[in-house]
Amino acid sequence: MRLRLTPRDTSFFDLFAVTAEHLITGANLLAELLGADRAGRIALGEQLAHVEHLADESTHAIMHRLNKTFVTPFDRDDIYNLASALDDCMDYMEEAGDLIVLYKLDELPDQVSEQVQVLQRAAELTADAMPRLRSMADLPPYWVEVNRLENQADKVHRKLLGQMFDEISDPIHLMKLKEVVEKLEDAADAFETVANTVETIALKES
Amino acid sequence: MRLRLTPRDTSFFDLFAVTAEHLITGANLLAELLGADRAGRIALGEQLAHVEHLADESTHAIMHRLNKTFVTPFDRDDIYNLASALDDCMDYMEEAGDLIVLYKLDELPDQVSEQVQVLQRAAELTADAMPRLRSMADLPPYWVEVNRLENQADKVHRKLLGQMFDEISDPIHLMKLKEVVEKLEDAADAFETVANTVETIALKES
Amino acid sequence: MRLRLTPRDTSFFDLFAVTAEHLITGANLLAELLGADRAGRIALGEQLAHVEHLADESTHAIMHRLNKTFVTPFDRDDIYNLASALDDCMDYMEEAGDLIVLYKLDELPDQVSEQVQVLQRAAELTADAMPRLRSMADLPPYWVEVNRLENQADKVHRKLLGQMFDEISDPIHLMKLKEVVEKLEDAADAFETVANTVETIALKES
Repeated sequence: MRLRLTPRDTSFFDLFAVTAEHLITGANLLAELLGADRAGRIALGEQLAHVEHLADESTHAIMHRLNKTFVTPFDRDDIYNLASALDDCMDYMEEAGDLIVLYKLDELPDQVSEQVQVLQRAAELTADAMPRLRSMADLPPYWVEVNRLENQADKVHRKLLGQMFDEISDPIHLMKLKEVVEKLEDAADAFETVANTVETIALKES
Repeated sequence: MRLRLTPRDTSFFDLFAVTAEHLITGANLLAELLGADRAGRIALGEQLAHVEHLADESTHAIMHRLNKTFVTPFDRDDIYNLASALDDCMDYMEEAGDLIVLYKLDELPDQVSEQVQVLQRAAELTADAMPRLRSMADLPPYWVEVNRLENQADKVHRKLLGQMFDEISDPIHLMKLKEVVEKLEDAADAFETVANTVETIALKES
Repeated sequence: MRLRLTPRDTSFFDLFAVTAEHLITGANLLAELLGADRAGRIALGEQLAHVEHLADESTHAIMHRLNKTFVTPFDRDDIYNLASALDDCMDYMEEAGDLIVLYKLDELPDQVSEQVQVLQRAAELTADAMPRLRSMADLPPYWVEVNRLENQADKVHRKLLGQMFDEISDPIHLMKLKEVVEKLEDAADAFETVANTVETIALKES
């Protein structure tokens, strides 16, 4: 999909869609990074940082437009909250990738891949839902599914945490891994916040 | 106390009271969990998770009602902030309990009990204050006392932190205990946020 | 500069200026604390706690005024956000200082001083900008420079983190140092939030 971003046809809806497309790219880069070797990870980490920068720019464009627009398609606060939550999703994914590189975490438990798969799925659902904000059509299955995914992510996270503390005896390695695992959990929470904000918007409109 | 929750008589005030009652139950379960053996803790942790779920449902009911109601008894933002802060109190208490079970922290320092006693007292004060939101009567002693309690919790927390780092030589045990102690401090902070929100509401009405 | 704080001439602008002046004092005390010996640090930590208390009082004065004032010079939410973000700057600086004392961190890496120098510069820029909120004149250079500083702080922080994990083999020392370094990074982020809020206010007014 290619979005034209000339000043004339840029709307809040288009800007949300652009940001959410960056989330798909970001989650996919993160998945690739997990499977790469150390040199590959450095390169992929830089790409991830670049996508995070692009997402940051579309968030700024939303905020700028919000502050200069008198009539908005829905509540100002909800637009602000939605943009912030989308931005958080990207920030946490980028931080997780950056820490994996920085801490040289060559081997990662399998459940870390499970965590990232949840993020990939949540990003796709989110990007799929954003264009439907215009018509408010067919949004409930989106937020129900993202809430279910977050629940699943939470279970994976708690189980992984218990297992890490049982099995890893090197405290410094444990500290590193725990920080990565928590950033991934924060990202899953941020996707849920996006979905809850969409639910709030839809409820007000109904 | 038994609250009737038929659709007709459910108001924001009733819903806040119900949520706050769950906080008392949650804080008491957490206190019980501290004193239990490993098997008892698992059972109490499940009860705590159940109460957290109930509190979550009353938070959702508040948010749903807020989004569907045109005239609210006080500022929409304040209703939103109050519901969120009450929800945070429960989440942090539940997370603390869950971590104690997950990390198999058989022995806990005495000050952890002190932290939980502060939470029990804060929960009682909060549940006691919620029904008075309707009349706005006699609220200052509530927020003054919760602020005092949070101050006391902060002192216990900082002292405990210093002591833990002085006395515990196993870094992994230290990591586990620190996380529990911080969740309890976060819960005390959340009770203070509830009290500050009530103060904001009362100031606007006065 | 000496601000008269009689009830008559106290405005939001004056109160923001007072809070920001406390941030300069706080950042300077933190810099002094880094260079002091253990006894000196205890004394400076107490001074820092005192300044944090003063900043807290001016934040409370802003919030109180906000809740009692019908017409505000700019959006109520922005006033609230600005006051909260200024308060966060101080809280994180105070917490960092307190942890350095509590954890008896006699030797600190040079980059910790770099982090604190960024905070000192950000505090000066912030205090310099606050009085200009009245006329909205000449604010962009302020927020551009604080954003640049935060970027620089972030780079210092990530590099320091990698280096710490490479070089420090004592996990407990690593935990202590990491917590201090993160509080300083949180403070730099909070100064950026202040600048972003000022940008939001200026955009709406333009």
